[in-house]
Order: sequence, then structure tokens, then C-alpha cells
Amino acid sequence: MRIALDAMGTDSRPVNDIAGGVLAANEFGDTIVLVGDEARINRELQNHQVNDGAVEILHAPADIAMDEKPTDVLKASPTSSIYIALDAVKRGEVDAFVTMGNTGAVHAIATLKTLRRIPGVKRPVLSALFPINQHRMIFLDVGANADVRAEWVPQFAIMGSIYAQRVLDCPQPRIALLSNGAEDTKGNLLIRESAELLRHSNLNFVGNVEPVELMGPVADVVVMDGFVGNIVLKMFEATAHYVATLIRQEFRNDLLSTLGGALAQPAFKRIRRQVDTSEIGGAPLLGVNGVVIIGHGQNSPIGIKNAIQQARAAVREDVIGAIRSGIARQAR
Amino acid sequence: MRIALDAMGTDSRPVNDIAGGVLAANEFGDTIVLVGDEARINRELQNHQVNDGAVEILHAPADIAMDEKPTDVLKASPTSSIYIALDAVKRGEVDAFVTMGNTGAVHAIATLKTLRRIPGVKRPVLSALFPINQHRMIFLDVGANADVRAEWVPQFAIMGSIYAQRVLDCPQPRIALLSNGAEDTKGNLLIRESAELLRHSNLNFVGNVEPVELMGPVADVVVMDGFVGNIVLKMFEATAHYVATLIRQEFRNDLLSTLGGALAQPAFKRIRRQVDTSEIGGAPLLGVNGVVIIGHGQNSPIGIKNAIQQARAAVREDVIGAIRSGIARQAR
Repeated sequence: MRIALDAMGTDSRPVNDIAGGVLAANEFGDTIVLVGDEARINRELQNHQVNDGAVEILHAPADIAMDEKPTDVLKASPTSSIYIALDAVKRGEVDAFVTMGNTGAVHAIATLKTLRRIPGVKRPVLSALFPINQHRMIFLDVGANADVRAEWVPQFAIMGSIYAQRVLDCPQPRIALLSNGAEDTKGNLLIRESAELLRHSNLNFVGNVEPVELMGPVADVVVMDGFVGNIVLKMFEATAHYVATLIRQEFRNDLLSTLGGALAQPAFKRIRRQVDTSEIGGAPLLGVNGVVIIGHGQNSPIGIKNAIQQARAAVREDVIGAIRSGIARQAR
Repeated sequence: MRIALDAMGTDSRPVNDIAGGVLAANEFGDTIVLVGDEARINRELQNHQVNDGAVEILHAPADIAMDEKPTDVLKASPTSSIYIALDAVKRGEVDAFVTMGNTGAVHAIATLKTLRRIPGVKRPVLSALFPINQHRMIFLDVGANADVRAEWVPQFAIMGSIYAQRVLDCPQPRIALLSNGAEDTKGNLLIRESAELLRHSNLNFVGNVEPVELMGPVADVVVMDGFVGNIVLKMFEATAHYVATLIRQEFRNDLLSTLGGALAQPAFKRIRRQVDTSEIGGAPLLGVNGVVIIGHGQNSPIGIKNAIQQARAAVREDVIGAIRSGIARQAR
């Protein structure tokens, strides 16, 4: 298998990207194709021990900053690592693309310029894996579509279920719809219409869930609109970080607490690992003609390796073929 | 001043409600009118020392459960404590109403049956006070309107600013719009249209904020639609609770951590107080012809007393009159 990895994705590019790619190449035995500026990649590779033939380079001279707007990106893109890598997936030169880069740019270039939509897919969708009590839930949409129509939501559920089955080892995924209360009367118009469509589908829809239920393993696939999904994820991260900061401050306030905090360090390390989404590495962009995994810009090399592992599973289990059939079946 | 307090609001009604009412009556010297079943209230009052004339009872035989739908409530309501109390505000027999009861019922009965809208107000709005680093931000809407039109949002901002100025001691409130990113290009259609209206108003609009910015004092009034607002608040509470639970579990995992956790108890108590919304007591329903403060069903007597204190300030500072003029000025 050949997997393209964006060498220019993380905030510390190309350092963490290449370290993650080398970890994966040495461990999995696949070829990792590092995409980015060849000279910079070669320089960085000198810091690593790489098995023979485990790594290749695909040159891409341009750079896409994290804060560029997708529209600007589309104009400037043909020589960026994202564009060149997605084009390589399209032309079958690599089997998948993994990046920690600009999500909006990946979504726009994949959907509009290179891979394009799987036939019948109304809108490709960004997902995130939400890590609660060692249970991985897939959330979608978390940002591709800020304004969603109810008729798109069952497709989000189909694509998320296929990914959960084939990559997340979840044989019978339970689908839930995120609302502000479990009752049918709650939610906005989009939620009520989407719930109606999900109830009358043959999907394994278990009903509406509210935020507190996300903290337990009540579902495997949680669908929502991209605006709400993006806010919910960011609220989780911001709150967890805020509470952790409060704890650190409070532990400096008196001697007993300081001592207690010092003794409790191992516990804190375990907690950080449990709320840290970067251990998971990434999540798929679903609905385009190719395997694309996108992760956080702050990802560690381990996180990047884990993202590559997801890409391998998605290729091996033919997620794209399964989505193609799933969407075709829905249309009948 | 005479303030009606729902004796049947909290999950432990009438125990905490009456304890909070008695605290307020004895401390503030106002008359607290306890609204609910007279016999139950009299029985519960025997557990308290009450200053002469500090407490009165307004009999209301019916009970509204927390899980009743607003529509059912409207049919069954005329003898409930919520209906009778709001009617007393309308007829000028009391100056304000404070309740820890069913938010949907209070909103529906106030808006459609008793107080009704202030002239020119498109939609009354539920607020919440968000407690971050000792700074109180007012969030609105947090649940009255699941589907919001952009033209309503500047009114939310006007009402929130007046409340912040007059009750929350914030002379120049900064208004922000909650989005999934600070950039103008982020957000859904409603956000982009609302931001446009806010930018072209003479309100003190400081721009869009994303969840991480809610954790610092970047704004005083944060406007959003009622569906997103409700989810954001619930996500904050659920995440803070989840992280706290993780910490408790981890502290049982090894001896050093357990010891550390025991020593750090005072720090944890301080943290709990800082993320505990019930210390604040409640937040106003704005846009109706009367002062209405609604709090959590799990409120403590101290929280209820604090909610009553907000009601007193809102009456004393004539929040209703100020909203009436503010909305009239906007319409000109």
C-alpha cells in the first residue's frame, strides 16, 4: 500500500509530519509518500532512520497556511502539497491521503477540484472521532457544511456507519442525532425534520441525544449540522482545557493542594491522554472518491501514525466502495 | 418591594425553594411571596425562623412537572404556581417573579398568557449567566427560540446589554456573536446575516467569538440562536462534569494519586464553586412586561437567594422600562 502524507500539515511542519510518517513507514511496512518541498523534506529526513524504500518524496513547492480561506486556497493551490497529493490519489498513484493541514482547503480541493463527490452523495462531510471512556464515537458533520438540509442527514448517517463498521470495529453502529434534549419536541426545525427522515429509514437510528449523553457510550455515530458540530467539538476542547487550567491554578494556592497536585501527577497524565483528541490522530472526509484522513495541526508523531493506520484500514476494508454501494442503495 | 417566589420550582420542592426565600426575606427585608400549595408551604415554614411580615403565601394548587411539554402546560396551567405568580406580576400585586421551575412553561405562560411581549419585541429570549474567572457574561438566547431570524438578534443584544448595565454592573457591555471561528467567513447563514446587522447598528459589537474565547473575558453579552445556546451551555456543563468524574476515578487508581487527591480537596472545592452555575442562581427571561428570573431545578438555597437579589436589582434599576425605551429607539 502507498499512502501520501502531507509533510507540510502540522503547526511544526515538516518536523512532526515527517516524524509521524517515518514511524508509520517503519512499523507498518507500507510506503509513505511524503508530499511537500523536496529539499526541506530531505533535510529533515537526515534526522531519522528509515527502512529502505519505506519513504518516497513527491515534490510540492507551494505552502498553504492554516488561516487561508478555502476560496483563496483554490486560486493558489495547484502546486500545494494538498492539491498534488489529492491529485495523486485521484490518478491512483497512491491509495490514500493523510494530512494535518488546513481542513477547509482539503475539503474544497478534494470536493471541487480533484477527487470530487461519489455519485449520489449530496454533500461530502467532515467527521471527528470523539474519545469518551475508551469508546470512539464518530461525529459528523463537524464543519464541511454550515447550513445543512434535512435530506443530507441520512447520508451523513450512512457514511458514518460504514466507517464505524469497517474502520472502528463496530459491527452494528447505533446512529443518534444531536439535539438539545432527547424528547421529540426539542430541537430546531432541521433536527425535527432530520429525525423524521431517520426514523422512517432502515438505518439503525436510536433517537436524539443531548450533550450530557455524549459523555457515555450511548451511540456510535452522531449526526449534526456542520456549524453545531464544529461548535460542540470546540466547546468540549475549550471546557476541558479551562477546567484543567483552573485545577493547575488552584493547586498553587495553598501548600496542601500543591503537595496533593504533585502527588497526583500520574493521574493527571492519564486524564490528559483520555481527553486528548490528538492521540486518535484524525478522522475521515467522507463522500469523495478516495480515502482522506484529516487531523489537528498540533498532532504528535504518534497521532500522525495513528491517522495513517486509519487510512490503511479504510483502504483495506474498501470504505469507498462500501459508501458507493450504500448511497446507491439509498437512492433506489 | 414584593417578590413572588415559586415554592414548587426546584427538584426538591418546596424544601430548597422555601429555604432560599426565607434567606432572602430575612437578609434583604423585602416581602417574599411564596407561591404554591398553601398547606405544604405552611408545613415547610415550620422548619424556619422568619422575620415578621417577611413572608406571605399565594395559594396555587396545581403542580407543573419538569418534563411536561409547554403545550400541555398551557392547557393545564391556570392554577399552577407559575401561572398564578406571573398573573400577580401582571396585575402589579408583586414586582417580580423568581422560579427554579420548568423553563419552557415559564416562557410559554409569560409570553402567550400573562405578561406578554414588550411592544416592538420580536421574540422574548432566555438568558444564562456564564461564570468564567469571576467574570459574568450574559448568553442569550439559550433556549426560547430554536429557529431564529437574523433580524431578532440585534434585539437580543439590546436586551442583554441593558441587563448587563443595570444588573451586572457592566457600564459599557461588549457584544459578541458566537460562531465557530472569529473570521467573518466562518459561521452559517444566520451568523453571517446577524453579524452584518450588528456591524451596521450603533451597538457596541466587538465581532464574532468562538468557544475557546468564551473561557476568557472577551465580551459581556454573547448572542446566539436558542438551539446553539442551549447546546453550548449543556456541553459546558457535561464536559466539566465529565472531566471532574475522570479526575475522581483516576485518583482512586494508585496510592500516590489517592493521597494527592485527598490533600487537594480544598482546591477541588474551590474549583467546583467556580464552574457551578447554581451559585449565580438564575438569569432573566427578557422581552416580556415584567421581571422574571429563572434558575436551575438543582439550585441551593444560596443560589435561590442570589436569583432573588438579581430580581431586586432588575426592579430597582427599572430594566423593563429601559428595554421598552431601547426597543422603541431601535424601531425609529
